[in-house]
Parts: sequence; C-alpha cells; structure tokens
Amino acid sequence: MNRRMLLGRRPSWTATLDDFVVDEQPVPDPRPGEVVVRVLWIAFDPAMRGWMNDGPSYAPPVTLGEVMRGHGVGEVVASGVDGVVVGTMVTGNLGWQTYAVALFEEGTLGRLEHIHDPSASRPVVRRVPDGVPPTSVLGVLGTTGLTAYFGMLELGAPRPGDVVLVSGAAGATGSIAGQLAKLAGATTIGIAGGPTKTAWLTDVAGFDHVVDYKSEDVAERIAKLAPGGVDLFYDNVAGRILEAGISNLAQRATVVLCGGISSGYSDEAVAYGPTNLSTITVRSCTVKGFIVTDFADRFDEATARMSRWVAEGSLVWADDIVEGDVTEAVATMNRLFDGKNLGKQILQLGTPAHA
Amino acid sequence: MNRRMLLGRRPSWTATLDDFVVDEQPVPDPRPGEVVVRVLWIAFDPAMRGWMNDGPSYAPPVTLGEVMRGHGVGEVVASGVDGVVVGTMVTGNLGWQTYAVALFEEGTLGRLEHIHDPSASRPVVRRVPDGVPPTSVLGVLGTTGLTAYFGMLELGAPRPGDVVLVSGAAGATGSIAGQLAKLAGATTIGIAGGPTKTAWLTDVAGFDHVVDYKSEDVAERIAKLAPGGVDLFYDNVAGRILEAGISNLAQRATVVLCGGISSGYSDEAVAYGPTNLSTITVRSCTVKGFIVTDFADRFDEATARMSRWVAEGSLVWADDIVEGDVTEAVATMNRLFDGKNLGKQILQLGTPAHA
Repeated sequence: MNRRMLLGRRPSWTATLDDFVVDEQPVPDPRPGEVVVRVLWIAFDPAMRGWMNDGPSYAPPVTLGEVMRGHGVGEVVASGVDGVVVGTMVTGNLGWQTYAVALFEEGTLGRLEHIHDPSASRPVVRRVPDGVPPTSVLGVLGTTGLTAYFGMLELGAPRPGDVVLVSGAAGATGSIAGQLAKLAGATTIGIAGGPTKTAWLTDVAGFDHVVDYKSEDVAERIAKLAPGGVDLFYDNVAGRILEAGISNLAQRATVVLCGGISSGYSDEAVAYGPTNLSTITVRSCTVKGFIVTDFADRFDEATARMSRWVAEGSLVWADDIVEGDVTEAVATMNRLFDGKNLGKQILQLGTPAHA
Repeated sequence: MNRRMLLGRRPSWTATLDDFVVDEQPVPDPRPGEVVVRVLWIAFDPAMRGWMNDGPSYAPPVTLGEVMRGHGVGEVVASGVDGVVVGTMVTGNLGWQTYAVALFEEGTLGRLEHIHDPSASRPVVRRVPDGVPPTSVLGVLGTTGLTAYFGMLELGAPRPGDVVLVSGAAGATGSIAGQLAKLAGATTIGIAGGPTKTAWLTDVAGFDHVVDYKSEDVAERIAKLAPGGVDLFYDNVAGRILEAGISNLAQRATVVLCGGISSGYSDEAVAYGPTNLSTITVRSCTVKGFIVTDFADRFDEATARMSRWVAEGSLVWADDIVEGDVTEAVATMNRLFDGKNLGKQILQLGTPAHA
C-alpha cells in the first residue's frame, strides 16, 4: 500500500499534521515507460512551506487534496522501462508518500526543472549517478547546492580578500555557499545557532569565523569580526538576522537574498521587517533576490563543477537524517524553521532492499 | 549682522528649534579670494535630517556648535575677487545663516562635491548660470535633479513599455525621476498625497497615473493600475509605501532606493520595516541603493543634459518656497517629512537687492 500525505488545508502559520490527510492506496503496476519507486529519503527545503500557501511563491501552490510535493530518492521496485532494473536508485519529485509511480527519463541531474512540476502524482525521475551517496543528489549535488553555486558565485561574485557573511550557515545552502566563497579567496563569517553547528562550521566546513546567534549579539559580533564592513552578505534567514547583517555592510556591498528561513513561517518573524534599509541607500549597496530556476539553463555546468569539487574533497556537506514514517514529514520539515538541522534535512523512510 | 543657526544638540526624532542655538555675529569683510554672500534661498532635502545624527549617513554629521549645513543661493554683497561684482548670484553650501563668507571659484555647477563639505564655515561658491531662475540650481539643475537622473536613468534604466512606479512623486527628486522615465518611453505611476499634488503630477508633470496615499489603498490601487506588475520602482519614501510597492513588483523588477522620507524621522516610521522582502527573492528582483555622489565624476554630463531638457521644456519642476526668517529653517525642513511640499522645498530669506 502507498501511504500518502495529502495537503488537507492551507496551514495558518506553522504547518502541523492536522493540515494533512493521511491515506493508503494500492500501489499499481507500472505501465510502459513508468517505474514504481519505493521512496527511501524525502528532502526538505524552507520553500516547501511556501508551496502550502496560496502565494506568492515561485512555484504554484500545492493543490488541496494532492500529495505534498517534495524531492526524494528511492529505489525502483517494479519497472516498465527496458534497461531499468529493480533496485535502480532514482530521484525526482516523489512527494510525501511511500511509493511513487513515475515516468523514467535518462539524463543528467543538471536539468531538474521537473522538481517544480506542480504535481507529484506522476513525477519524472532520473538515475542517481554511481559513486556518490544517494542522498547527495538531494543536497550538495541537488537543488540546494545549485542554489549556493549561483547565488554565491554568480550573483554574489566574491573577490579574493572580500569579507563574506553567510546566515543560516549550517544549513544545506549556507554551508555550501560559505565554502564556495572560501574557494574564491574570501574571508568567511558564518552565522549559526549553538556549539555543535558552530564547531562544525569552523572545524569541518572551514569557515574562518562563526557567530552564534543563540549566545551572541549578532550585529556587535560581526562588527568586531569585520571592522571594515561586510562586502557580501548571503542571507538565508531574513528578519532580525538580515537586519544585523545590513547594519554591518561595507560601502557598495552586495546582499544576496536566498529565501528566508525565519520569514513567513511564524507570527513573530512575519511581523518583523528590517528597519535599517536606509543603510542600503547611504552605503550604495545592491540587494539581489533570486530563485535557482533563474539559472535552469546552466544547471549542467554547475552540477559538473560541483561534482568535481565534491570528488576532490574541496566541498564537504552534512545530511541531517531523521528516520521515521512518512507522517513524520511535517515535523521533520519544521526542524528547518526551528533551526535544528545541520546540513540538508532529510527524512529516511526505509533502507535500500536491493543495494 | 549674520544670524546663524548652530546645531546645539542632536535631535531625538523630529528636529525642533530647541535643537539649535541662534546667534548673531558681525559680518566680516572679504579677504582676497573670498566673497561675502547674503543668503536669499536655502534648500532642504530629507538627507539633512540624517546629517544632524551621528550616523550612519553618507556625509559626516554636522558638528555640534557649527552652522547647520545646507545648500543655498545668495548674492554677493562684498567681493574680494576680481571680476566678481556685487550682485553676482552664487550657490554652494551656504548653511543656515543670513550671510556666508565663501571662497569663490569659477566652474560649472556639474562639480558640486563641495556640497558635502562637512563645514559650512567657509564654503566654496560658484556662479548661478545666466538664463535660469536662480532657485533652479537648488532643484532640477542641482543635487535633486542629478539624483533623479542617475537613480532613474543609470540604476533604474527603464525601457520603453516598462511600468515605472515613483513614490514621493511630487517631491523634488520624484517629480523629475518620473518625467525622466516618461522620456525613456515608460508608463509612469506616481504616489503622492492629496488632490493638489496628484493633479499637478498628471496635469503638469505628465505622469500617466497617480495614487493618492491619503485617500487610497496604495497596494490595491497599484495592482489595478499595473496588473502585470511594476518593472521599476523608484522609492523616495521607505516604510509602508516601500512595502506597498514591493508587493506589486513584476518578475525581475528593479527597486531603486533613493533615501527614505518616512524613514529615520519619526517613531512610527522608524519602527516599521517592510515585512514582504521575501517577494524580492521569489520574484528575482534587484534592489539598488545609491547616493548621488557615487556619480560625482559624471555630474557635468548630467547637468548638461538636464539643462537641455529644461530649456526645451521637456522637464517641468516646482519650487515650494516659504518666506521667512532663518529660524524658520527647521519648520521648513520638517514640511518634507510631513508630506507638505510640492517640488523643491526652499526657504526664502530675502529678495535680491541688486537684480
């Protein structure tokens, strides 16, 4: 049986299990061209909370009564495609469910437009490449890695010697973005919460400095670490963290806005807009918003380069894997907004049977 | 006697006369190279309120005990410069005082770096060109005109067919910025308060549409006027008006931040930051802050072009002239923050004796 999480109503603030209808449906046999996938890992991204609303977001809202949209990795358990054997690892918009009937397509993971396909009812899936951990295609080699790549290297474009500030630095995107800035010769300052994350950032991910927002005054500490100001601020958080970064911008600094973990998800955060935008004016700064699909025609280029860095060991990453039933998806997603995840937040539903 | 307005303390919110010390000093004779100027018109700009603070601003704070800094026009009443006769109209950072001893310099008005000279104690002045109303060098042919020119044409860079939104549209900068967008082939929407201003914008300044923030829901009305979204938003106001504009941005729109009339000047406005910055992200928009001196090396080019448009009648402007004593300067400046001015806010201290 396929156990599914259907969006039952639009959550008011924090999403809860009550916003979903859980049902079970028989798993059909695959038709020609299709595969039946047992979902093993579901990945979470702050943007997903936005898809549960009516808008505005960059992707259409999830239709009420449909399976909640979400990227995942699973194994083929029944195949209607020549050359795709049972046990093949595939990835795509599998949705919040235990089995997905999907159209199989050969091709690189660089062209992931289908992840924003509004429907998870019959997603397109592609093979997980050999030689990488399957979950890496959900994070460092997936959408979050691409987001860090284009946001940091294309829009931020740090130069050697720049001071680069990254908020949400222990998150899936922030941790990669900071490492990319370091590869470009910048001095990196990460903002994260708590000793585990801050230690990981400096000791494993190679950030030069870390600010612990749970125990330090963020604006003051940045000012001490970067007395000449921040040249580039890659913000994943919005709200008060964005404000603290803005107050430390150097003349002609750039701010890259990459979603807002703290924005749109809870009452307090929604009510809070940065009050210091005049700093953007008086310091002649530029703020650049973007979504990763702006660069869809360059995903192959980026994936190739990111894969090389991963293979060389120039980029490290963390997967934050929770094991549980598909109904744990809501609580697992909410870890993102509670600042609990270190790296890519993933829910593991099972283990590969055919590996 | 020279009646002077010295900054006595840093105002907490709205500046009042109590924040100043008024004194009288004998007017000295000019030394060689100097002229003594009787100040006739003092110009006001929202940024001046920022100069009374300790920062952050793009210009150094006015030192306590010094004459308040401010651009003006006056006539030479005593000259220590060969070729500069009594009655010559000059402009520069004359300050909030009735007489200024200034260094005279020949040259175009395009190089106005001296307006941000921190001291008004001995400003540099240049001749007001023949054939234009003297006060025009304080507005359309002065800093505010240059601000509109670079902010709109260089950073905003509207294309024919773009929908361009301008807040503070009846102000000195906004009214010119909107006309420049129209010259570039855009459809222009101005935001202003009250029937006098809105009528002036459509009937005199040629805006295509006007939203009256005093009687209309700004966000809703923009949505009706621009159902496809705003391609370029030139914001002079910040706060809730900025928020209303952001909610109506088109995909890949540009926002130009040109100071904030409502920001930094009163409790309520200070407390208010736009809560919808996530729209910048999900619609892949760019926000560009700037100050006019970023373009100081191109002031001559811009002044020449602006002068041509003024001579041709392609640009119209309004001067909002209050007559009064120099102690009226604070109240006259505050008209900017109360939304009272139509066009360039000016205090007229006297009439030319030698014209």
